[in-house]
Amino acid sequence: MDPRVVELHRRAAARGDVIPLAGGLPAEELLPRAALAAVIAEAARDPDALQYGWPEGHEIVRAWIARRLRERGMQVDADDVIVTAGAQQALALAAPELAHGAISAGAATYPAALDAFAAADVAVTCDARAEAHYVIPGASNPSGVDLVEPVRAELLASACVIADEAYVELRFDGRVPPPLAAAAPDRVWHVGTVSKTLGPGLRIGWLVPPRGRRAAALARKQAADLQTCGLSQLALARLVDAIDCDAQLARARRQYALRATRLLEALHVHAPSLAIAEPEGGFSLWCETGDGGDELALLEAALAHGVSLDPGHIFRPDATAGPAAFRVCFSYAAPDQLDEGARRIAAALAAWEASGRCAAAPRASGGAPRCAPRSPSTT
Amino acid sequence: MDPRVVELHRRAAARGDVIPLAGGLPAEELLPRAALAAVIAEAARDPDALQYGWPEGHEIVRAWIARRLRERGMQVDADDVIVTAGAQQALALAAPELAHGAISAGAATYPAALDAFAAADVAVTCDARAEAHYVIPGASNPSGVDLVEPVRAELLASACVIADEAYVELRFDGRVPPPLAAAAPDRVWHVGTVSKTLGPGLRIGWLVPPRGRRAAALARKQAADLQTCGLSQLALARLVDAIDCDAQLARARRQYALRATRLLEALHVHAPSLAIAEPEGGFSLWCETGDGGDELALLEAALAHGVSLDPGHIFRPDATAGPAAFRVCFSYAAPDQLDEGARRIAAALAAWEASGRCAAAPRASGGAPRCAPRSPSTT
Repeated sequence: MDPRVVELHRRAAARGDVIPLAGGLPAEELLPRAALAAVIAEAARDPDALQYGWPEGHEIVRAWIARRLRERGMQVDADDVIVTAGAQQALALAAPELAHGAISAGAATYPAALDAFAAADVAVTCDARAEAHYVIPGASNPSGVDLVEPVRAELLASACVIADEAYVELRFDGRVPPPLAAAAPDRVWHVGTVSKTLGPGLRIGWLVPPRGRRAAALARKQAADLQTCGLSQLALARLVDAIDCDAQLARARRQYALRATRLLEALHVHAPSLAIAEPEGGFSLWCETGDGGDELALLEAALAHGVSLDPGHIFRPDATAGPAAFRVCFSYAAPDQLDEGARRIAAALAAWEASGRCAAAPRASGGAPRCAPRSPSTT
Repeated sequence: MDPRVVELHRRAAARGDVIPLAGGLPAEELLPRAALAAVIAEAARDPDALQYGWPEGHEIVRAWIARRLRERGMQVDADDVIVTAGAQQALALAAPELAHGAISAGAATYPAALDAFAAADVAVTCDARAEAHYVIPGASNPSGVDLVEPVRAELLASACVIADEAYVELRFDGRVPPPLAAAAPDRVWHVGTVSKTLGPGLRIGWLVPPRGRRAAALARKQAADLQTCGLSQLALARLVDAIDCDAQLARARRQYALRATRLLEALHVHAPSLAIAEPEGGFSLWCETGDGGDELALLEAALAHGVSLDPGHIFRPDATAGPAAFRVCFSYAAPDQLDEGARRIAAALAAWEASGRCAAAPRASGGAPRCAPRSPSTT
């Protein structure tokens, strides 16, 4: 990711007065801290918590993941699952499959996926006719809109799909679609995580590669870090036994839907010129201004006004395309900060426009997508 | 690593009758389970345990690592340290620095380091005149001998060194040398871990890159998995506060020294034809037979006789070089199994020699080192 953005976010994090609308963090109050604290000592006493384990992960965790996927309509066994350090590592393990090739990722997508593709020497294109696709089913990042369902048939006809289902269980309507891999298990790499639902600090995600590619993916996992944290795997196993995961998800959906509405309405009031798609789930809104312009300057203006956001260019494979845009997350800030956050965003937009920097960076058009290497990122 | 070896080890693990001399695992009874269980609930309640953190890791953990390194004579701050998922991830983050180039790793080394180099497209050579070197100071894997001290000056004159100090605190004499990076911080990538001392299941290691390369290494960390497990980092922070780490190390050194002596003496008695260097630390012995031969068949013979070992070829960058050899670990099997383990090794060697497979695989000589891609591995 753009290191200038990282630096600005780091400086903002050190201040106490910035309303945090950047970063894609889950709500603190939805993380099951008490339940985890109640079961964690037992997990720590398990012989497998501190010793080496197999690279594919603990069977009890793989079995839980497979069961959840089967409940959603995918034919999958524990043996098909590789437990990873979050969805990010699953992407990093899938990406080398396409090394020296190209993948389509839409016009705006999860920034750290772009990093993972760049690290594996995979060019990211905006060409929807590509043979490989990276998609975020159910509720996309950054827009919260389901961009997969309308093109499902075309997607399933392509040679390779990496389906990052990080947000799929957080559709506000609770209509969780079957895993995309259920329909084409020989071509879809299924990626999942508990980061958005139970806690990113656990660093537990998973990869279900096409069966014929599992051995290669597992070898990459072993070369990357030998295995996923044993303590964390056993903590998760006991946690999901102790809580009602579906009730936890239902609570999260209600909370995030309320916050989404609150931020969306506040932005409609304070910054009516923004074009914002209504989200169907997820953590964030994608806001397009009517202008071109320097999105980094927009982030600077936002921070000067006491609010953070993620500038649009970090989401775009072609960083020069489209109108100036930004992502704001409703997931992490306190609900009663969202209206003030929107007010500050509006003030920052006005200052950015007044400064002339809304058109300061001339934008290329019609050129080839730019797919330069990227560094640290946001979720 | 050779998938045939992985498959044989997996099958052996499912049996209950194999004395485990393979794998590089720490002794169960030396892992601080009770201490961890006593502090872990508090760690789980820390807000940083479940939420996202920065890619470099938690400051409290980086500060502890830096302090331990300063006590060993290295000028290093918390800000120089990147917390990784074990030493393996530190190697995987350092390796791309040499992509499309070559690194010398000695005649036999840690197999998963070879995997990490292969994954990053780094050729591994046995040529000691190479400009880049991978070394394991203090007590090498697999031999337990310090191979660094005798060539320290030459090493420090080379362009790039990756110093994997996984076993450095487990020298039996307790003489822990200064980190190699202390003498050439602009060229040495320091790698460390708690896997051999406090527990591999925590997946906590670290990388201290040369300062000018830190940003690039951190970008790779972010692309790999965003950050190291927060729960595990906070568990480690509280654990090292609760225990006396130096006393823990002293106990481990005594235990492993006793076990090393026990296995070495038993092998001298039961298999006197083996050439075994006396280890100065670490977890294992490197045993050379007088023959060439099929080391995989030797592993099969060992498993048939109820004992496991790691065949020599997985340690060798040039898998075709040298006499048939194998590694045996004294670290994990119960001490009172070591004599019986040595007896079974001797019986397996006799059967292997009688079968003629000690010379079944003709060995190339004088050819270029073979640095083929490898898959899962042993520690």
